[in-house]
Parts: sequence; C-alpha cells; structure tokens
Amino acid sequence: MSALKFKLTIAFDGTAYQGWQSQRSGLGVQDQVEAALARLFASAPRVQGSSRTDAGVHAFGMVAHFEVPRTEFRMPARHLALALNACLPEDIRVRSAVRAPASFHARFDATSKQYRYHVWNDAVMNPLSRTQAWHVPRALDLETMRQAAAYFVGRHDFRSFTANRGGVLEDAVRTLTRCEIRRTGPRVTFFLEGEGFLYKMCRGIVGTLVQIGYGKFSPEEVKAMLAKLDRRVAGMNAPAHGLILWKVFYEPRP
Amino acid sequence: MSALKFKLTIAFDGTAYQGWQSQRSGLGVQDQVEAALARLFASAPRVQGSSRTDAGVHAFGMVAHFEVPRTEFRMPARHLALALNACLPEDIRVRSAVRAPASFHARFDATSKQYRYHVWNDAVMNPLSRTQAWHVPRALDLETMRQAAAYFVGRHDFRSFTANRGGVLEDAVRTLTRCEIRRTGPRVTFFLEGEGFLYKMCRGIVGTLVQIGYGKFSPEEVKAMLAKLDRRVAGMNAPAHGLILWKVFYEPRP
Repeated sequence: MSALKFKLTIAFDGTAYQGWQSQRSGLGVQDQVEAALARLFASAPRVQGSSRTDAGVHAFGMVAHFEVPRTEFRMPARHLALALNACLPEDIRVRSAVRAPASFHARFDATSKQYRYHVWNDAVMNPLSRTQAWHVPRALDLETMRQAAAYFVGRHDFRSFTANRGGVLEDAVRTLTRCEIRRTGPRVTFFLEGEGFLYKMCRGIVGTLVQIGYGKFSPEEVKAMLAKLDRRVAGMNAPAHGLILWKVFYEPRP
Repeated sequence: MSALKFKLTIAFDGTAYQGWQSQRSGLGVQDQVEAALARLFASAPRVQGSSRTDAGVHAFGMVAHFEVPRTEFRMPARHLALALNACLPEDIRVRSAVRAPASFHARFDATSKQYRYHVWNDAVMNPLSRTQAWHVPRALDLETMRQAAAYFVGRHDFRSFTANRGGVLEDAVRTLTRCEIRRTGPRVTFFLEGEGFLYKMCRGIVGTLVQIGYGKFSPEEVKAMLAKLDRRVAGMNAPAHGLILWKVFYEPRP
C-alpha cells in the first residue's frame, strides 16, 4: 500500500474564518489545515472534512481525513498532531491525529453528529461569551421550549428548517435523535444530535425554539411547520457564532 | 444633596486591556468606562473600582462607583446601564447600574471577593478557550491539589504569594475563606474567596497548586512556603488570562 491515511480531530474558533470549506480568499479552516500539511509533506495533501460549517460556526470535534505517500511520512505517527499544531494558527488545533484504514472516509462513514448551541439569556450580554453565544435578552420559558423540542425528534422532512441554496432539495428527510435544552444561570445550551443535518438546519431549529420560548409560536406549531415543507413558515435562523460542531460519531469497525 | 452616587457591576474581556486601572495609553478598562461616562455627563465623572486587575485578567462582576451632579442626571436611573453600554466597546458591559447611598465606596466597603481561575488540562489546547484558560498539558492529581488547597484556607501572611512591586510590604496578612478545585472533563476551575487579595496572590496560589498537581511540590510544602515569607520559595504565577474577578460582596446595609 503506497499511501497512509490519517484521521484528524480538529477544534477551531470560527470567528476569523468563512467556514470549514476552502475559499478563494484562503479563509476556510480547511485552507489552513492544508497549508499546514503542505509545510510537512511535499505532496501537499488535501483534507476531506466530515461536515461543512458556515462562516463563524465553531468546532470542538470536526473530523477530517487525508492521505500521504508512505515514502513521505518519516515521523512517528504520534508526532503528527504536534507537528501540525506547530504550523497552525492558535485558533485551530488538531486534538488528535491517528492512522485510519484505507477505506475510512470522514464524511461518508460518519454515522451521527452532535452540535451544541449556546445562548446567553440575560438583559446584558456577557462579554466573555460574545463570540460563542447568541445574546437573547427576552425571558425564555424552558418548559415550553422542551415541549417544542420533542416535536423535532424523530424522522422528518426538515425542508422547512433549511436555507435554500438555490435549486430544489431532493431529499430533506433526516432523523434527529436528540434535541435537549439545559440551563445553567443565564447560559442555555441546546444539544442536537442526528445522523445528518441539512444546510442551516441546526440554526433554524434553535432560532424557532427561542422564538417559541418568548411566545411567538406555540410548541404545537412545530408540527405544522414540519408538515408544510416551506422555509417561510418556520422561525428565524439563530446566528452562526453560537453554534459548535461538538462531535462526529463513527461505527466501531468490525 | 447635590450629587447622585451609582454602583456599577461590570463584566469585561481583559484580552485587549492593560488591566482595570487607568493607563496613559488609555488602555485601562477604567479609561473606557470613564470615556463612556464623559459622553453622557458633562462633568466627566471618574470611577472608583473595587479592585485593580492585571493586564489580561477578566471580570464578570467588577464593582465600581461614580458620582454625578443631580442637575446633570436627566434619564430614568433604569436606563443608565443601557446608555453606558451604547457607548462602550463590546468587550466591556455594564451588567447593572443602581443608585447607591452617598456613603457607598466600591473598594472600602467590599467585604469579600470571589475569583475563578480556569485551566484547560489536556495535551492540546482548546482554541475556544485560549483567551480564558491556562493550558496545562501535564496530568494533574486533583486529590493532591485539594489537600494543598486546604493549607491556604484561613488567616495567613501571604507574603510568599505576592509579587513584590518594589518597596517593603507592610501588611500581607489576609484571610482566604475558600480555595476549591473542580474538574469537568479537561476543564479545571479554581474558586478563591477572601476578604482581600494581594497583588498577584491568586495567580501565585493557582500556579503553586498546579505545580503540586504534577508533583513538583508536595501539599505539605505549602505550610513551609507560607512560613518563610519569601516569594522565592513559592511556586510559579499562573498566567493572567485564566483569571476572572467573579464577584465582589458587600455587607447588606442595615
């Protein structure tokens, strides 16, 4: 076998980036990771991420893979994360870099993903959370929000909760396995878990739940929003900077 | 009575500032608060803070007071925080602004203070916490650290745990009422509470506890460090950016 494959787990502060995906500007997180790889390996490997994330969205557990010719890989594998971090800016860190089987694919093999969304629910924003939480000054009724959250869980066509990127979306059916809301003082955290997510789906769900929390919609309206398959009937999109791709899950291999 | 006094509770991200206190550069947090007050009130009130904080240290509950001539104060008092926040940069927020008795003094009336210190204890730093936690990659033994923390609690001469700002420190006796350490995954949080703190005292205590946690000192050595009244015998100072002035306490008034 001439190429070695590696699985990277990457955390990043998305504030300065235009999302994960490569950009002409070079301001995709992927561009930075590929630039670091190019400093280590002459073949300048491309990386394949598990998920795209929007501009300003953060990650704690993005997963990506890349391949490098065996002849180019001269360091002990356990040094790879250290070597990459030495070439990366401080707002991107490789948490782990491990050998992966040749058949591993960060995107196609992902079985589910967990996103977390942070809201700072107080009259005044906490400046220490301003780049990682959405400021919602209005009082939120968590019990009502949790009733609404239950309607999202399960297998649904989530067409009403995704931004239209132009063209017709053929398959918008996804299974959401967890939609949980916890409060610690003014901090409200949403846990969203599912096999896959549509473009801006997390932000549409969280934005709608927050609007339910201050009385703009009733929890039962979620059922109608889902049924109508029309983005215009659902609530707002929560802003990008409150969202974190927390973890990507893979089946344990046989 | 010709002047109105107000008590402000202020949160700030200290990353961009040279500490609370006014600086010739204008980069003290106090300078920013006074600049905001000068935009609202012709008399350009000075503010008196409860505590100085070092460059890079954050606050969630700094308290400060100021006075303004009654004739100048034309808004409903409940609008003051909103008006100040409209004049402040996003990394400084007035969490509350309330009328205080003429005799109130933010510094002299403070009965105790709580600081929190965050450590990210993992091989790789979390980029989402990089401006608000100290990265300690070595394994920490929390039980040993908690034994050591107990030696700090009580009334001691803390001369060995303060930076010498030149000159002789006359009174270094302080009472630490709480020194607690909690872990949530890789995040280790220190809770320090006491009637008053010397310059860099929190950072000296946390730095020493972390060094105890990876075996550089034994818990019992804290007793000797305190007894020797000499900064050179204690451990390192933890860096500023992990520290937050969390809350300032005042006696309930009769």
